[in-house]
Amino acid sequence: MPHRLSSTDTDFETRFSALLTMKREDSPDVDDAVAAIIADVRARGDLALVDYTSRFDRLTLPAERLRFSPEEIEAECAKVSEEDRAALELAAERIRAYHARQMPRDESWTDETGAMLGWRWTPVSAAGLYVPGGLASYPSSVLMNAVPAKVAGVERLAVTVPTPDGVANPLVLMACRIAGVDEIYRLGGAQAIAALAYGTETVAPVDKITGPGNAFVAAAKRRVFGRVGIDMIAGPSEILVIADADNDPDWIALDLLSQAEHDESAQSILITDDAAFGDKVAAAVEARLETLERRAIAGASWRDFGAIVTVRDLDEAARLADRVAAEHLELCVADPEALSEKITHAGAIFLGHWTPEAIGDYISGPNHVLPTARSARFSSGLSVMDFLKRTTLSKMTPAALAAIGPAGARLARAESLEAHGLSLTARLEKLNRGEA
Amino acid sequence: MPHRLSSTDTDFETRFSALLTMKREDSPDVDDAVAAIIADVRARGDLALVDYTSRFDRLTLPAERLRFSPEEIEAECAKVSEEDRAALELAAERIRAYHARQMPRDESWTDETGAMLGWRWTPVSAAGLYVPGGLASYPSSVLMNAVPAKVAGVERLAVTVPTPDGVANPLVLMACRIAGVDEIYRLGGAQAIAALAYGTETVAPVDKITGPGNAFVAAAKRRVFGRVGIDMIAGPSEILVIADADNDPDWIALDLLSQAEHDESAQSILITDDAAFGDKVAAAVEARLETLERRAIAGASWRDFGAIVTVRDLDEAARLADRVAAEHLELCVADPEALSEKITHAGAIFLGHWTPEAIGDYISGPNHVLPTARSARFSSGLSVMDFLKRTTLSKMTPAALAAIGPAGARLARAESLEAHGLSLTARLEKLNRGEA
Repeated sequence: MPHRLSSTDTDFETRFSALLTMKREDSPDVDDAVAAIIADVRARGDLALVDYTSRFDRLTLPAERLRFSPEEIEAECAKVSEEDRAALELAAERIRAYHARQMPRDESWTDETGAMLGWRWTPVSAAGLYVPGGLASYPSSVLMNAVPAKVAGVERLAVTVPTPDGVANPLVLMACRIAGVDEIYRLGGAQAIAALAYGTETVAPVDKITGPGNAFVAAAKRRVFGRVGIDMIAGPSEILVIADADNDPDWIALDLLSQAEHDESAQSILITDDAAFGDKVAAAVEARLETLERRAIAGASWRDFGAIVTVRDLDEAARLADRVAAEHLELCVADPEALSEKITHAGAIFLGHWTPEAIGDYISGPNHVLPTARSARFSSGLSVMDFLKRTTLSKMTPAALAAIGPAGARLARAESLEAHGLSLTARLEKLNRGEA
Repeated sequence: MPHRLSSTDTDFETRFSALLTMKREDSPDVDDAVAAIIADVRARGDLALVDYTSRFDRLTLPAERLRFSPEEIEAECAKVSEEDRAALELAAERIRAYHARQMPRDESWTDETGAMLGWRWTPVSAAGLYVPGGLASYPSSVLMNAVPAKVAGVERLAVTVPTPDGVANPLVLMACRIAGVDEIYRLGGAQAIAALAYGTETVAPVDKITGPGNAFVAAAKRRVFGRVGIDMIAGPSEILVIADADNDPDWIALDLLSQAEHDESAQSILITDDAAFGDKVAAAVEARLETLERRAIAGASWRDFGAIVTVRDLDEAARLADRVAAEHLELCVADPEALSEKITHAGAIFLGHWTPEAIGDYISGPNHVLPTARSARFSSGLSVMDFLKRTTLSKMTPAALAAIGPAGARLARAESLEAHGLSLTARLEKLNRGEA
């Protein structure tokens, strides 16, 4: 059974806080092992990649074959059904359309002193995308990372994906092809991250690495951060559903289970203003759990971290939602827009009865890479901005420097940075001499 | 003497690469000490803050006095000269005007299926700004961090600044007041970061921490990352000047020295298409170094990491500049706009003879917190975006779900995520039964 809380309980505050702070994931300490792998890849390059791939993925290939050839990609893609290909293409098209609207504009203007000020955006030149192998090898995640990179204008996009025993996921290769990925390598784990960050004979280094992975991949990304940019370190998934009594309990149960089935450490929370509706959803979850393929995972998540919270009214629900700062927030209420206005912290909001969170995982267009573990308080989902950087621009005229330079020189003196001040006053003196 | 390179030298590639990768900073391993301090602040709260402040800053105060009172702030601000106050106010006003233009817009639209899609931006609720003590206690950095936070709409902005022996920097307090900082604490080091991230009895926790600091502060920021958001971990400062022969060698020398005087590990590089001009700048630097107050620091930086690079032409200069990906890039050439178009990677570009980098440190308006150590390849300077986060929005109609839901359900099946698929098909079935 999930946790059951009511905001009228005397111990509510204690139990709700406990729900938000409960430790859901054991992070094994793999840092030393990861450091050794990275050092080895830096030292031995391709040879190290060949060794680790042989050891961890039971795949022994010469370095030049670590990269998929065009023929190999073609052969894998040929295994994908026409219907699956069409679904991936529709998803890619919708993700592309949504993210194209995120492209920021360059700006420049002349201020009242005559100074030109502004900024411009440029794409990261080369990006690497890590794709997990095995069960968590999701073609949808390939699209969610690769499409924004290409929309941003990344010239070179390299994917690494482990192929245990040499087995590839045809859908992942198809998603790479649809998204315009330039290079695909049969590489996984910390060795893949090291290759992307530092480069080897066959893998050219990139500037930014994104994509999910296991504890080794996460530790490796933390280690190479600074050498390259990385996206967030994702935690286990979460959904918060706010629902009134006017909902089909089975729909809400399925929405809660669609997070719970990801991972035993996922968290699904229902907040409702109707305790009886909460009971119906609890029963519907149990009924679905009897037949669900991933019932062992979903059941463990629901039992350990799931919760049904009864509140007095929807205003209270909104206040609690801000404390949860959920990755995914569904508003299954009569006026979802009005409720949405009362919420500040959430990775993605799904409005109304016809917007199950799963639509956003695949096909609606917004990104499914979203801030977890309450980090929606301070961070955002993946976007084109993750593959762009801003250069600020300024150009003083003699008049502009005359107008603001003296104040700058004064502040430089106040900070005891003499050369800073001199670089301004040397120019100002020339102006004062009437030489400019 | 600085390094002298010419792109026509046979060993140029080797020496230029060495220049970019030379280790400029020893990072002492303070991670264990920092972990202990953070754990102690989490366990003992205010008591730990009082102890560390007594030990490290030789300042023994009860916890309730760690925060500056309005009267104390007023008394410190009264020590600031009218001219310094006016300079800080002009700087704040210009930083505010520049950053106000960075505010991104919310978007929402209806697509061809009738689905509403979009996103909205909201500020981080509470931010903490670390301000170093001692020599590196820069009021300009207070403005560069605090003004964008307030422009973004951060409600609660807390500053921590160590006050060794109880001595505060009046200019820092004045900058806090001008920027609208809400709380100021006499706290420094890892204990300040721990207090901001986890909170104590007197310091409420924040969601995001920005600002520069020493090795302890940097290590603490890395450790609390995830619990809160952090800005970049800044490295030593850099300037790259591209100058043709038509420049005053003394101006260029001062621009190079204005980075060198920051830190012995700062790096100042001149690229010129005229070797004789390079000689003149080298001589001008030596002449200025004879009298500069911070000549020991600036001289060490110039000697160890400074460089004058002669190139064949400005196109070659632009290509090298992209490899440097400098924090600060000055273009002191006849047509700086044209040269700027050829450069992709730089934190900030200063165009023309009248735009010394120091104008951007203080008063022009763009942020002076910029990506160091070649990270301009993948990251940007501080901006309002660092204090905002985006929530994506979507709302399907029955018709929209009917149009794209089946493709979503197909992808869910392909990924073996049954509940994801069921959450879509349960709704689609109701539509197919004509009940919606």
